[in-house]
Amino acid sequence: MDARAFIREKRDRQAHRPRDVHAFIAACLTGEVADYQLSAWLMAAFLNGLDDAETQALTEALIASGNRFDWSKLGRPSADKHSTGGVGDKVSLVLAPLVAACGVLVPMVAGRGLGHTGGTVDKLEAIPGFRTRLSPREMEKQLDRIGVVIVGQGPELAPGDGTLYAMRDVTSTVESESLITSSIVSKKVAEGAKAMVYDVKCGNGAFMRKREDARHLAERLVATTRSMGVASSALLTDMNQPLGVAIGNALEVRESIELLHGRGPAEVRDLTLELGVRMLVASQVETELSAARSRLEKALDSGEAWKTFVALVEAQGGDVRSLDDGGRLPKASWTGEVRAPRSGVVTSIDTYGIGDLAVSIGAGRRSIEQKIDPSVGFLFQVHVGDAIQAGAELAILHLAREDSSVAERLASFVRIEDGPAMPLPRVLEAID
Amino acid sequence: MDARAFIREKRDRQAHRPRDVHAFIAACLTGEVADYQLSAWLMAAFLNGLDDAETQALTEALIASGNRFDWSKLGRPSADKHSTGGVGDKVSLVLAPLVAACGVLVPMVAGRGLGHTGGTVDKLEAIPGFRTRLSPREMEKQLDRIGVVIVGQGPELAPGDGTLYAMRDVTSTVESESLITSSIVSKKVAEGAKAMVYDVKCGNGAFMRKREDARHLAERLVATTRSMGVASSALLTDMNQPLGVAIGNALEVRESIELLHGRGPAEVRDLTLELGVRMLVASQVETELSAARSRLEKALDSGEAWKTFVALVEAQGGDVRSLDDGGRLPKASWTGEVRAPRSGVVTSIDTYGIGDLAVSIGAGRRSIEQKIDPSVGFLFQVHVGDAIQAGAELAILHLAREDSSVAERLASFVRIEDGPAMPLPRVLEAID
Repeated sequence: MDARAFIREKRDRQAHRPRDVHAFIAACLTGEVADYQLSAWLMAAFLNGLDDAETQALTEALIASGNRFDWSKLGRPSADKHSTGGVGDKVSLVLAPLVAACGVLVPMVAGRGLGHTGGTVDKLEAIPGFRTRLSPREMEKQLDRIGVVIVGQGPELAPGDGTLYAMRDVTSTVESESLITSSIVSKKVAEGAKAMVYDVKCGNGAFMRKREDARHLAERLVATTRSMGVASSALLTDMNQPLGVAIGNALEVRESIELLHGRGPAEVRDLTLELGVRMLVASQVETELSAARSRLEKALDSGEAWKTFVALVEAQGGDVRSLDDGGRLPKASWTGEVRAPRSGVVTSIDTYGIGDLAVSIGAGRRSIEQKIDPSVGFLFQVHVGDAIQAGAELAILHLAREDSSVAERLASFVRIEDGPAMPLPRVLEAID
Repeated sequence: MDARAFIREKRDRQAHRPRDVHAFIAACLTGEVADYQLSAWLMAAFLNGLDDAETQALTEALIASGNRFDWSKLGRPSADKHSTGGVGDKVSLVLAPLVAACGVLVPMVAGRGLGHTGGTVDKLEAIPGFRTRLSPREMEKQLDRIGVVIVGQGPELAPGDGTLYAMRDVTSTVESESLITSSIVSKKVAEGAKAMVYDVKCGNGAFMRKREDARHLAERLVATTRSMGVASSALLTDMNQPLGVAIGNALEVRESIELLHGRGPAEVRDLTLELGVRMLVASQVETELSAARSRLEKALDSGEAWKTFVALVEAQGGDVRSLDDGGRLPKASWTGEVRAPRSGVVTSIDTYGIGDLAVSIGAGRRSIEQKIDPSVGFLFQVHVGDAIQAGAELAILHLAREDSSVAERLASFVRIEDGPAMPLPRVLEAID
């Protein structure tokens, strides 16, 4: 492997041959290529880009660094969903058991909170006893028995992505469409689902703020996933306000339980159903969107999805009594209200600010070593377009201790003006 | 030092503040910033460039990593020359004692061969016993006594440049105008000369092949050097054919001795005088170019320059008998001729090919550990524009052993055609 020639090729805006991409990544992982050569290449790739064939080759190389699960021996269709991350996004907790209840295996490998966003693994760990590390053998048995697992990324899945991501993090080469695509797709394809639906968030609380950037990423995720032999589609969804009401791990588990009982915020229910529809269609369980939706609504309203969720929690060691009795979930020691400073209409919400504030009170982490506090967070009550009276409740704070500055900061993220404001759509477009 | 923020700034094409450049380089050299962060920044700087203020700050930071010599206590003007590297360029061996013989101190810190080009330090080391490592105290005494030293770069001069260069070499970030400028200027300014003349080579045997690239580099070298309080000018000179006849270390020493006796190839003598003129003017020993040239011609033709060269060799431990008796210089064990395959006119010469062939027979090195053979090389007899008969001598090979493939390869680098061809100019333009 001539690392210098490979780096020079990308530096000079030439396209790599796929086999050279494979050889370079393999040599980086064995240490034959030094980390400072990997980082120089990452910067060249960041600035000069990778085309579709290069991105595909990089994705394949990352998958080849570990195992690729194959659940086809279980003889059932399989599907999964991946979200690019937002604030208050607890959809996976509802969607995974819901789709499993419709007869589709969901072998979900989920992430932890990243930056200002929460992560499914952190949320599930708010349930006392819930284990997010299972052996491949345990995953297979559980998938066969109840149709769904939700685990964190173990060392057997795309370990090369972990190496690359750690390097990107310290060399400011994270926000590259090609590198993001190969990172996401390698992990998701390695987990073995045969259909993959992406929820690409877009707005002031998402990593992609501009719609055209989000659309472009969605298209590349879908194309790269398909090039790996996995069916795929994507929804572009709005993240200019938190999703639902609950923000924070135990609070989001509670909201998910509500949703699994057919209650909870309509917008979260609707987005969950829309993503489920794509999963059923991509895994060819249904061909029509409307039929898929009816099937999902039935599974949700009949309690089948709830039963599957309870089975999931039980199978992974979680305390199922905590699901019926909210008192057994972690509870913050102090709660307080945030009130509207004036009357008017909510014209915009700084969603990044809210997510970052949630991290700062302990609901997320700034570094990988930091412990999170599952009990803390916000119940954020308003949406863009809401008319509101001075003194009305904007949010309820759940904190480890009284801190009046949090209320002030949270209120500062909500802009209330005289003018009218339209409610924001949730699903912006579909990439099929 | 927030290395990530600094890298991101250059990645996003923003200008660094000079103090941040200082802090980053200092932190790289202490190890506070990791080498993979330095290499990511180097690639970002390579692709997005550094402006004049950033290049100046980088140069200052590299100088600050070591000592900056100051010879002003010796009470005489000082000057030096730096060439960007070519094939057969032995000018420094003649120029340094020549300018010293005119009363200007020449504290020359020279380099070794790089890529396909030779280096002054390697050439001088062909003289038995010649020491290219002197202590600062030895340098000062010798400068005071005979007015000239020629040494290799010791660890006290811009050690940060060594660190950066080693990293650039393995990450394909060498050929960047800003990084080249700061590397050259930091070393040359640290050596303490108060006037610096650059010989920027341009053509198929130079690192800069295009004239506009070479001009741009020359302008930046001059501007950055001046920003350090050192007078400076540059000549753009042609490197589309070897300079002079001799290529190879001992052979070039022999040609230098000829030149110091007022003989040798006229083109080398002329270029040496032109560069000397700029050194005398930049160090304000002369104000008129023509007066400076007369003074240099006199010093050369009177034998003063030769006497200074002998004193230099003696002072640095070289065997001065070898200067009078060519038999004491290293001699190749086999010599042979290369003859013209056809009659015609020399229309072009692949100078890179010749330099690279010289390296491959042992006159240069492919890696820093490799030993060079001072005895081997070529006496290359023809120039572009020469009319030539089939069977006439193109070159004489000096090899460690008979190897007919070398003659074939050398002949292949000389294009002989029917058409006419103009001789090439040597000095293309001056940057004053």
